[in-house]
Amino acid sequence: MPQGKVEVVPDDGLTTRQRRRQAVLAVHTGHGKGKSTAAFGMALRAWSAGWPIGVFQFVKSPKWRVGEEAALKALGAAGGPPVVWHKMGEGWSWIQRPGAERDHAAEAAEGWAQIKRDLAAETHRFYVLDEFTYPMKWGWVDVADVVATLAGRSGTQHVVITGRDAHPDLIGAADLVTEMTKVKHPMDAGRKGQQGIEW
Amino acid sequence: MPQGKVEVVPDDGLTTRQRRRQAVLAVHTGHGKGKSTAAFGMALRAWSAGWPIGVFQFVKSPKWRVGEEAALKALGAAGGPPVVWHKMGEGWSWIQRPGAERDHAAEAAEGWAQIKRDLAAETHRFYVLDEFTYPMKWGWVDVADVVATLAGRSGTQHVVITGRDAHPDLIGAADLVTEMTKVKHPMDAGRKGQQGIEW
Repeated sequence: MPQGKVEVVPDDGLTTRQRRRQAVLAVHTGHGKGKSTAAFGMALRAWSAGWPIGVFQFVKSPKWRVGEEAALKALGAAGGPPVVWHKMGEGWSWIQRPGAERDHAAEAAEGWAQIKRDLAAETHRFYVLDEFTYPMKWGWVDVADVVATLAGRSGTQHVVITGRDAHPDLIGAADLVTEMTKVKHPMDAGRKGQQGIEW
Repeated sequence: MPQGKVEVVPDDGLTTRQRRRQAVLAVHTGHGKGKSTAAFGMALRAWSAGWPIGVFQFVKSPKWRVGEEAALKALGAAGGPPVVWHKMGEGWSWIQRPGAERDHAAEAAEGWAQIKRDLAAETHRFYVLDEFTYPMKWGWVDVADVVATLAGRSGTQHVVITGRDAHPDLIGAADLVTEMTKVKHPMDAGRKGQQGIEW
């Protein structure tokens, strides 16, 4: 990465050092790979910085992220800052079956309530809200509540949200938004996901 | 991530299980953030899968990736597979000063020679060639040699290459290519990089 160049010097009365310590809200969106993977990569830096890490996984199946979970938990056990891993709705079905949405919505709302409690208590310093764009998109959590809660969070709590189709209001509120675009994928050539690469 | 759907079933005589075990060449390119970060996130899964990891860092300054290096080395020390970290050309200047290119080119060529030796010996099972697109772009390593070496590598050695402006031949040879695009960056608003987030 090239040396960062500041395009605008903000008139906010803060020193560079103070600005370096501002909390970051990052969003990884788009249809390509690497959204969650980059969020967990950021967690490596957070761990190295000594920051307590909270992961909130809004995913379809406990199979996913097993590698990341094992590795980050090993790091948590290796004498660094604690790593707490929440899995919302283990066994969620990805496909919304008629009549089944209600429980998923309740589980998502429960997960979001936990995040709100943790933000209020400043439990963690680095949060991964993995695949959180989907409950936002599906109306399982209130977008305005998410944006207001994140905007009003206290301290220096960094938050990374991943998933396709990030809501425009979330993008508006974020400091850092990256879109991952698929250029080429092995599945195009008939290859399937594989251990160590996909999970 | 949604359930992977195979668009084409290849006529290669392999079973799905065999295809799941094929070596992957991935490229993370584009001008957005997350290219290297996602590569190091993949290393978490590789570690969890028990694969020896080799990182080859073609970067401008030893300051970069210190968080990832510390965390991955801690994982390597935590009883899992070994993690070997090569830093090519510590103290490289990013900007090519006239008269200074020659040493950088030699250092890059040296790094690539080490990668070739490791691939031939199957030293690692997961390789991160961080920011390796630049020495390719600048002619410090031979693109045709890189592509032929990677195409001919033995065993199941997964390779991830990161950096902007990936050479078209590299993209052609890759199984998985993701482009990271900047949608929004704190530096646009005059904020500078910060510890734990940028390094």
